[in-house]
This record gives sequence, structure tokens and C-alpha cells, in this order.
Amino acid sequence: MPETTHQHLHNFQEANKDKGRLLICCPDQPGIVGAVSNFLFQNGANIMESSQYTTDAYEGTFFLRIEFDCPGLQGKEEEMKSKFRAVAENFNMKWDIKFVYELRRTAIFVSKQLHCLRELLWEWHSGELVTDIALVVSNHEDARELVESFGIPFHHIPANKDIRKEAEAKQLELLEEYNVDQIVLARYMQILTPDFVAAYPSRIINIHHSFLPAFVGANPYGRAYERGVKLIGATSHYVTNDLDEGPIIEQDIMRVDHRDHAEDMKKIGRKVERSVLARGVKWDLEDRILVHKNKTIVFN
Amino acid sequence: MPETTHQHLHNFQEANKDKGRLLICCPDQPGIVGAVSNFLFQNGANIMESSQYTTDAYEGTFFLRIEFDCPGLQGKEEEMKSKFRAVAENFNMKWDIKFVYELRRTAIFVSKQLHCLRELLWEWHSGELVTDIALVVSNHEDARELVESFGIPFHHIPANKDIRKEAEAKQLELLEEYNVDQIVLARYMQILTPDFVAAYPSRIINIHHSFLPAFVGANPYGRAYERGVKLIGATSHYVTNDLDEGPIIEQDIMRVDHRDHAEDMKKIGRKVERSVLARGVKWDLEDRILVHKNKTIVFN
Amino acid sequence: MPETTHQHLHNFQEANKDKGRLLICCPDQPGIVGAVSNFLFQNGANIMESSQYTTDAYEGTFFLRIEFDCPGLQGKEEEMKSKFRAVAENFNMKWDIKFVYELRRTAIFVSKQLHCLRELLWEWHSGELVTDIALVVSNHEDARELVESFGIPFHHIPANKDIRKEAEAKQLELLEEYNVDQIVLARYMQILTPDFVAAYPSRIINIHHSFLPAFVGANPYGRAYERGVKLIGATSHYVTNDLDEGPIIEQDIMRVDHRDHAEDMKKIGRKVERSVLARGVKWDLEDRILVHKNKTIVFN
Amino acid sequence: MPETTHQHLHNFQEANKDKGRLLICCPDQPGIVGAVSNFLFQNGANIMESSQYTTDAYEGTFFLRIEFDCPGLQGKEEEMKSKFRAVAENFNMKWDIKFVYELRRTAIFVSKQLHCLRELLWEWHSGELVTDIALVVSNHEDARELVESFGIPFHHIPANKDIRKEAEAKQLELLEEYNVDQIVLARYMQILTPDFVAAYPSRIINIHHSFLPAFVGANPYGRAYERGVKLIGATSHYVTNDLDEGPIIEQDIMRVDHRDHAEDMKKIGRKVERSVLARGVKWDLEDRILVHKNKTIVFN
Repeated sequence: MPETTHQHLHNFQEANKDKGRLLICCPDQPGIVGAVSNFLFQNGANIMESSQYTTDAYEGTFFLRIEFDCPGLQGKEEEMKSKFRAVAENFNMKWDIKFVYELRRTAIFVSKQLHCLRELLWEWHSGELVTDIALVVSNHEDARELVESFGIPFHHIPANKDIRKEAEAKQLELLEEYNVDQIVLARYMQILTPDFVAAYPSRIINIHHSFLPAFVGANPYGRAYERGVKLIGATSHYVTNDLDEGPIIEQDIMRVDHRDHAEDMKKIGRKVERSVLARGVKWDLEDRILVHKNKTIVFN
Repeated sequence: MPETTHQHLHNFQEANKDKGRLLICCPDQPGIVGAVSNFLFQNGANIMESSQYTTDAYEGTFFLRIEFDCPGLQGKEEEMKSKFRAVAENFNMKWDIKFVYELRRTAIFVSKQLHCLRELLWEWHSGELVTDIALVVSNHEDARELVESFGIPFHHIPANKDIRKEAEAKQLELLEEYNVDQIVLARYMQILTPDFVAAYPSRIINIHHSFLPAFVGANPYGRAYERGVKLIGATSHYVTNDLDEGPIIEQDIMRVDHRDHAEDMKKIGRKVERSVLARGVKWDLEDRILVHKNKTIVFN
Repeated sequence: MPETTHQHLHNFQEANKDKGRLLICCPDQPGIVGAVSNFLFQNGANIMESSQYTTDAYEGTFFLRIEFDCPGLQGKEEEMKSKFRAVAENFNMKWDIKFVYELRRTAIFVSKQLHCLRELLWEWHSGELVTDIALVVSNHEDARELVESFGIPFHHIPANKDIRKEAEAKQLELLEEYNVDQIVLARYMQILTPDFVAAYPSRIINIHHSFLPAFVGANPYGRAYERGVKLIGATSHYVTNDLDEGPIIEQDIMRVDHRDHAEDMKKIGRKVERSVLARGVKWDLEDRILVHKNKTIVFN
Repeated sequence: MPETTHQHLHNFQEANKDKGRLLICCPDQPGIVGAVSNFLFQNGANIMESSQYTTDAYEGTFFLRIEFDCPGLQGKEEEMKSKFRAVAENFNMKWDIKFVYELRRTAIFVSKQLHCLRELLWEWHSGELVTDIALVVSNHEDARELVESFGIPFHHIPANKDIRKEAEAKQLELLEEYNVDQIVLARYMQILTPDFVAAYPSRIINIHHSFLPAFVGANPYGRAYERGVKLIGATSHYVTNDLDEGPIIEQDIMRVDHRDHAEDMKKIGRKVERSVLARGVKWDLEDRILVHKNKTIVFN
């Protein structure tokens, strides 16, 4: 890891040494916000940012994200969680408390196209994406030089549909060895098996090079060209077992016109892909995304 | 027609009484531009605006749109066309000359939702859309008051899938009676038969309430909500016999988020629909769109 | 008022007969959210939507907007406010409770250009802007027909810099007579005096036809053309005594290019102006905007 | 230069070995397009792309950009130019013929912020920006590692307002030594003297970190924050002697809200700056920009 990045991460941890995030999902009913904010107040935590959403008042599902500041939080993580359990049970909550200073460990998977990887590395390098990039895995050698220039381990694991199982076995081993929390598929052109996906539920982010659900599957730019669309787009989403059908995190588009052939669309598309993926990863790292059924609630 | 609109149209015709537009599509080969510009020069026409596009140099198709100024053009329309025929034959051109001061006559079809109709009427009223709006046809009465307040004939022709043939027969009769050049479907929720479409080839513009090819068919906002997309869009296109598969003219999108239910998306979508349709109609009226295979070349 | 609009407003009031909004601004300190949510819980109110923002943790200013549902709210308005006073005093709050079913009364001021007025009337007509439009005031007659076609009183009060005082005296009289809560300047091209502005603090919204602070003052499109900008924009803002210097609510832009003369920019600009103004007014009517110093906090 | 970049550039030159671009500016009159296209036809050149613009028909200035394909162009450059001189004199043209396979040599100036430099290097590396990057000049050492990793010479020339003359003397010497055609200021935070600017007229592109003419001068993000704008932007422009007043090439914006402090705006702004600069440089390298008075005609 470059010295400046190391410094960024260290500064971030210092600046956030008292910061936590409380994430809640439960059936809606009156009194949730009061109970939660009382709990925080009684435990010396001040609410810095709070976002909530209810699918349907009284009958729906309630979602809450609170960012709080709690002097002396470090060392009290388990105590905090254990105390909250009582509140959570009252309201039948699914919940988690994240400690902002505990950096998550990310693996990036990539194939031959490097624009998304590059964007992630630079955003990380300049302090925009706060995570430990534990390693980069690729089925090709193209990314090695770039990755290693950032002092990040690079692992080449050949992969294609004939050796999917073996490749994934090696990948899973590496992910465990490096203690990885989540995976970003930065234009990794291989399909993952249900077993692999099941090992990281809602913890694999992919970039698809179209505005889904248009052009699900292979060669979206070629098909966009054939159809004569005037917009091309990109979609970042969590990976599920249905190809390109997982919960959508973020989408964006750029204009094309009749002069743009499929190759031009690819080039233009790269600019959208990299920003749409980087935004999705950033929100994920900031715990701004709650997954509910096949959709995302994004508190940004 | 309101007095101000009448004045707008009259002023437009005066200001453009020497203006013509030459539209060409032919196999690419050297010398086309030279031949065409010499023809114009020799006939006293000055090129005001010129746009060209070639699908593939030497082997592809060549498209040209020229807007020219030719003092004394009125009265010489047939002469101009007849003289150009020789040039056209040399290069095996499909071509047309449009005379800007000859207003085209437009019919608008609408059902119960009036936002697109309203936008078209106001843009027309303020001089943005230059055409004679010959009549408005609807399968409901909702639009009558609005349409008649602009002094435009309104015709209620009940229509549904059981009486499609009869309805279209009446519509075609009206279109002939009103001497209509082209049709805009401003959220007209009925499917047209192949016979109807064949009577107005590349002369029917529709607005589809999604960014095609996503959500072809019915209820796009409901399906967009189900899928959890973060963008909704609209597409204006020429109507062909394949539902929502005609050549795309223009598309645009707006952002939505997890708080937007299908009903909200509909409301947000209206803003995109009306602007995407109005832009498409404007470009069409300005002869900026050439249709080639199932795509459009838009010289804007 | 048209029957459909009347129906929209009535339906809205019915659907929101238990809805209130609590708006708070106070020095930040721990415990605010807890105190407020306990108050609501104890008074039978369920929090439907909640947004907060703190300029600077611990030392800054805290802003809160809560939308709540409280069965039987009607008739208990004063009781609710009176009970909340104790909480408010504890935290030194500036605050208000709005009752969603109490429609605010709006006056629209306009001159000769009608596109913004038209947008507001149509958005109101279709149920997007929920307010009583009490009257429209203009220094010209151009808008009369449009306004009266919606059954809204129209008052022509000649105005120019020589008769400013007299004109404003008449306007203020009318505003009082019609019991107006707030004013929208929908391209009203007259400057208001400090006395007039003082009578409606943070309750006059203006649309300026540039992306402020570029092109403050007169003729922004002409100056944009001279400068050769590639974007033109519009800004909706609250009116203060400094011309075009009030708190900005919303801004947006559209692209122009070298072919667009000042007149073209005006036409393109109209599309931005009307949507930027309509969004600003909508957020204001939904109590989503808090003004702090010379800026806005917009909870949308 | 990395091997892949070298390959990109070589491939580009091969693919464009017969390609030229003709750029014309002259008083408008009938017959220009005809004369030019005849000249090209008679010299065996086929028009691939043609764009024209007239400020004002008959009385205004006429601009033309033609991209042509002329087998055997290499070696005939001077002959082509010399033959065209006669046509040019007839119409009193300012003109140039560019040969696409002759790569221009670019110098990049940078200070401590590297995001724009990085974007340019990567777009160049991936074949989007076609030029020889001759050297990078900086008044700091921060960029050295990045620049040298691409095999590009890096020169550190300390600069500040007290040693401007000496610094510029060294810079001009280097620019001559490296045979530089044009300069890109990729967030180079020093003001250039009139003498320096005069040495590269319309050949220095700068990125300004605001949507000009808003926030001319220093610290635009700080001032944007103070003013409470809802959009921040960036502007790429040619450098003239009036600070931030040169002809605008391209502008774009991104949304910010009340939560974004000046530091956040800086981060968000980086994304706009780098894309707005990269687009400007790309269009310049493709000879798509004609400068006229203090504006640009951009044929893109």
C-alpha cells in the first residue's frame, strides 16, 4: 500500500474513532425511533445523521440508518451490541452495528478491461473509498503491473466455464486466507456459481454494462448499437444467482448518436461504468445500502 | 387556432419564404457533396446548414441534409425538383426537397392522459413546433375542452381491441378529410393495425413510457418499480408493426429512488415523456431525421 | 377552480387528515431526537419520514423535519403545539408544526412571459402542487385569459419603477384581502422594495433565468451568449433585499452550443426555468426547505 | 512511453495514413462548399465528415471543417496545401490542412493536484487521446512518480509569483527543446504572463474549477459553498491574457446539497474537472474547435 494511502486510512480511522453506524430493518410500528434514540442517548452516543424509510405506514417494513458519535466507543463494541439486543427484540429487528474505524477488507476481481479497476484504485488512493484492498484476483495477467504498483497482492487464477469449480475453489481459499469481507467485480467477465455467491450474500457488487433491465446478458453494447438506442448506461448491483437480476444499487447513462458504432459505445460506456461502480462501492462501504427483497434502499 | 399562433405561423412562413431542405440517402462514393453543392450554386441557392453522415466510408450509405436559401423559391418548387432529378440519378439517390414555408398538417391522437398533448399544444402555441395541427382524435372525451380552447377540431372515436377495425376506418377517413401529413401518438393507448401503420410509413411518432428496450409493452412503470431501477425514462420512436420496436428518435431519463412507488414514477415519468416527445416531433418537423433500416440518423 | 382540481385538493386533504410536519432548528446537543420522538410517541403520533442535518457536530446547528401521522389530529392543533412548547424550550428551538390538510394560499405574480405560470397552473391542476392559488397578479393583461380559464381571480396592476410604491400598496392590499400565505414570482420582471419583501420573509420564491451567481441582474441570456457559455441554467430562490442574492433553493442547466443565439437560449432556457421553479415551489409547499443564514437546507 | 500506448499510436497512424482535415473560416458567400468539394474531388479526396456553421447568412462568417480520405496523401502534403491556396484566395479564407497521421506534441503542466493529469494519462494510454505527450512540467515533485511510470519526461521547475519570469524562461526553453505544439494546464495553479500566452495563441487549454463566469479567480469551491449553490461545475477554455476569460470549450456540472462543505465540493468537483478537461483536449486534438473572437465553434 502506498504511503499516502496508508496515511489517508490512518487519518480516517483517527477521525472516526468514536463513530458507529446502526442499521435496522423491522416491521413498522409506533415508537421505534424513540426507543432507538433513547438507547443511544443513554449510552452516551450523539446522533450525527439519521435516515429512515417505511415501505408502507403501519403495515410495512421500517428501515433505519443512524450514524452516531460515542466518545470511548473503542473497546465497548461488544457491550454496545449486547445492550442493544433487548431493544432489538422488542421490535423484532434485523440489525447491525458497524464501527466506522474498523476497515472492511475488499477483494477486487477483474479480467482484461482495467478502467473500472483503475477508477477504484485511484479513488481509494485519494481517500474517497475507505477500505483495505486485500488483493486483486484476475483470470488474466493484464492488471498485474497496475495492481502491484499500488503495493496490492495480485493473484492470477485462470478461469473459464470449463474450469469454473476449480477456479472458484482457489478463489475461495484466497478470500479466506486474506480474510476478505466483500468482493467487487470490476468487469470480471466470468459467471459465478450459486455456491460462490452463497458464500458472500449481498457482499458481491458487480458492474453491468447496460442500464438494466435492458440488455441483460452478453454483449450489451453490440445489442444497443443494433437497436439504435440514444442512451447507453451502466448498472451496479449486488450479485445473486440470477444473472444480472440482483438488487440494483446505482445506474447512470450517457448520450450516444447515430455516428457511434458498438466500439464507440464501449469507449463512452467505460466512463459510465467506472463512475457507477465507484459510487455503488462507496455507498456500500459507508453502510448506506439496505437490501430488501430484490431491491435496495440507498440512504445517500 | 388562436390569433397569436396564427401570427407565429404566418411570421415563420414569411421569414422562411426562400428556404428549402434537401434530404439525400445513397450509396457512398466520391463527388456527391461537390455535385450537390454545384447544383445548388447554379440554381441560386446558398447553403445555410449542412450535415452528412456515412455509415461506412466507400462501402456504406451516405446521408445528407442541406438547408438552403434560394431567393424566389416559391413558384419554382417543381422546376427545382425536376432539375435535381438528373443529379439524383447519377448517384442513385433516394431524395426529397422540402419547402420550409409549406407547413405540414399534423393529427394528434390521445387517450385520457393529457400531459403530452398539453406540452405539444403549448410548444405549438409559443412557436416552438411549426405545423398546422389539423385535428385531435381521442377514444375518450377528456381532451375535448383543452383542444377546443385552442380552436382545434376534436373528434371522439371510441376505440378498443374489439372495435379496432371500425375505429381505424373512421380515423383514416378523418385523416383524409383533414388532409393530414403525419400523426403523433401523445399517449394514445391503443395498438394500431398493420394496415393503419402502412398508410403512414415513418410518419407516425409514438411516445413509449420507458427507456426502450427496457419494459417493452404494457405497464412499464409498474414493472420498473418491481425491478427496483434507479432511473426511469421515455422513448419517442416511429411506429412500425412491431410493438415498441420502431426506429428510436430520442430518449431521456430521470432519477427515482426507493421511496418512489409506481404511482410516483408515473408522475415523474410524465415530465420525461412530454419533453422527449416534444423534441422528437420538433426534429421531425424540421426534417432532421432520416430513417435507415430500423434506426434514425438525427441531424440536430 | 376547475372541478378536477377541486377534487384533487379535497382528496388530498382527506388522505392527509391525520398528517403533520414538525420543523426544528436549534443548537446541536445530544438527546434532541430522543426527546422529540418520545413527545410524538406519547401523543399518539407515528413518525412517517424523518430528516436531520447538523452543520457541525456538538457546536453546530441542528435541523429536523419529521412527517408524522396522528389519528384525530384535527381539532387538536393548538393542544399539540402547546404541549410541544415545553420540549422546545429545553433545547432552545425555533420550531413550527404544520398541518398537512391546511392548504396554504398562494399568489402568483407574472409579467408577459407565461411559461412558468403555465407550468405552475398545470402542475397544480394535475395534483402535483398542493395549494390554494388565491389569485394571479400581473402588470400586463397577457395572462388574464389563461388564468381565468382555471377559474382563478386575475388582477392587473400596472407597475414600473416610477410607480413602484403605488403598485405595491395595491398588491399588498390584495394579498391581505385574499389572505395569502406566500408569493411565487413566475417571471415577474419588477424589482420589489424592501418593505414589500419584509412583509413576506422567506415566503417569496423567485425564478432567476441563469445559474446564479453567474449573470446576476438583467438580460442573462444576452450576456451568456456574449460570453460563449456551453450551459445555460436557472435558479429558484427566496427573495431578499439583495437582488438575486437570496437563499438558493434549486438550480438546473441545459446544454447550448455555438449555433444558439440569445433568442435560442431564451427558448431553451424556458424549459429549465419552468421545471426549476416548479420543483422549488413543490418542496416549499411540502415544508422541505429550511432557511439558515443565506442558504437552504432542502430535505428532499 | 508504455508499449501498449506506442502500439495504439502506431495503429492510429496506420489507420489514418490517408486522412486529412481541412479547416476554413471566411466571410460567407454562395459557392464556398461547392468550390471546396470540387477541389477535394479533383484531388482524389473523399469527404468523410463535414460540418459547417455561419454566424449570419450572407453577412456573417462561415466556418467549415472537413475530414477527408485521400489515398496516397503522405508525401503530398505541401502539394495539397499549395494547390488549395488558389481556392482560399478567391474566398479570402483563413485556413489550414491538418494531416491526421502527424501526431501533435503536447506538454502538460500540473501542480500538486493530480486528478486531471491522471485522467489525461489514462485516456492517452487507452487510446482515447491521440498525441505525443512530450513532457510534463510541474512546480512541485508530486507528479514525478506517476509521470515517469508512463515513461514520460518530468521536469520540476519551481514557480511562484516572485520568480514567474525566470520560471517561464526555463519552461519556454524546454517547450522549444521538446518541440511542443500545445500545452494543457491540468490544474497548474500559476498565472501565466502575456508573453508566455502570446507564444502559444489558442494553443493552451486550461481547466477552471467552476462553471464560468461564476466564480472567476481563486477558491471557487469555497465561494460556491458560501453562496449555497446547488450545482458545481468546471470549464475548459483556451488561455488568453484575461484570467478565466478565454474562449470556453466545454462545461459540465454536478449536483451538491446542503450537506456538502467546501471540501466535499472539491472532491465532487474533481470528477467534473477531469472529464471536462479530457473532452476539451480530445476535441482540440481532433481539430474540432475553431476559435472566433472570444468564442469557440465546436464541431462534435
